[in-house]
Amino acid sequence: MTRSADTHRSGRRPGNSGARDEILSVAREMFATNGFDKTTIRGIAGRAAVDPALVHHYFGTKLDLFTESIALPVDPREVLAPVYAAPLDELGHALATALLGVWDSPHRDRVVAMFRAQISGDDTGLIRTFLLDVALEPLLKKIDRPAGTGRLRGELVATQMAGVMLVRYILALEPLASLPSKQFVDMIAPTLQHYLTGELPEVDDSVPHQAP
Amino acid sequence: MTRSADTHRSGRRPGNSGARDEILSVAREMFATNGFDKTTIRGIAGRAAVDPALVHHYFGTKLDLFTESIALPVDPREVLAPVYAAPLDELGHALATALLGVWDSPHRDRVVAMFRAQISGDDTGLIRTFLLDVALEPLLKKIDRPAGTGRLRGELVATQMAGVMLVRYILALEPLASLPSKQFVDMIAPTLQHYLTGELPEVDDSVPHQAP
Repeated sequence: MTRSADTHRSGRRPGNSGARDEILSVAREMFATNGFDKTTIRGIAGRAAVDPALVHHYFGTKLDLFTESIALPVDPREVLAPVYAAPLDELGHALATALLGVWDSPHRDRVVAMFRAQISGDDTGLIRTFLLDVALEPLLKKIDRPAGTGRLRGELVATQMAGVMLVRYILALEPLASLPSKQFVDMIAPTLQHYLTGELPEVDDSVPHQAP
Repeated sequence: MTRSADTHRSGRRPGNSGARDEILSVAREMFATNGFDKTTIRGIAGRAAVDPALVHHYFGTKLDLFTESIALPVDPREVLAPVYAAPLDELGHALATALLGVWDSPHRDRVVAMFRAQISGDDTGLIRTFLLDVALEPLLKKIDRPAGTGRLRGELVATQMAGVMLVRYILALEPLASLPSKQFVDMIAPTLQHYLTGELPEVDDSVPHQAP
């Protein structure tokens, strides 16, 4: 689960931290602005004026580079692998278990720091790319029933889990913050399951206006 | 719904903004540290070295002063009055309606700004006091069934609504952000109702330890 970037970093030649930082800075900007799929290693290398091979050398794959860009201590798709593989009627429980497994682990502080940094900055593009393109994307086909509802379902899940991050870890409201992982998972799993596969009130697509 | 502080402010004598700012600064610190109930106008006045009457003159009641301390554009207990008065089986819908009524109103920007400021600072005491002592307190008796579960229920509700604030207003993920208020209320009301009055997995009180 630990990211591979540290090994890359330790292997770099001295004096090249400038190029490394420049790649990371360009990557953050491009992932935030263009999303994950439309951002390429080649494009990042071009803007950072380095060879694409150097990007791979420092950071590994595009997903490794994204993970480093957003300062995550774990590979999100590795964490979520059991969720992508879970049967439909166990998705909610699998998702809560996977996320709490990281959030209640020694990685907690770094995950919380990443979350706070991303939501308090002016540009929330990076965490949007993370939620929609990286974390949710492999799950989309599975939960897109009826067709067209998948993304909204994923975003409803995001409302529940973002709030858990805030109330359990940042505000640390008791008794909720001290509930053992397993009990807390059981409390929120039904909500996630409902958002992922339950019946949603009909959405009127003919009036997609922003509420006043 | 508009707070009364502006009228107090316009009535003050020129040259006294120092005392007014000092009162507000002391109030923020005491509300954050001691909560709402244990903080008194008299105590704030004492620490700010002014007469309690001056605090009332500038800010009105203790709740008015709190509302100003946390920079809320509306009186939270006025907003939540329909929730406190709602029948048990309509609590979830009443709560979602009351909150979205403000969040989707012209007050939105100030509420979002308050929320961002409070969660990104080092001291989250003020928003904890707000959630637990000010917003939740009048509802506690009603949802404390079985006895002892009320506060946890309120905090579960806070996880859902804090996440809505983040995903719908701060990250503004589409299509969720543009769903009309009423449709969005219908989507989250069942979750709130479940947390407020539904059956929760049993909490093992004998092991109230912080997860590792």
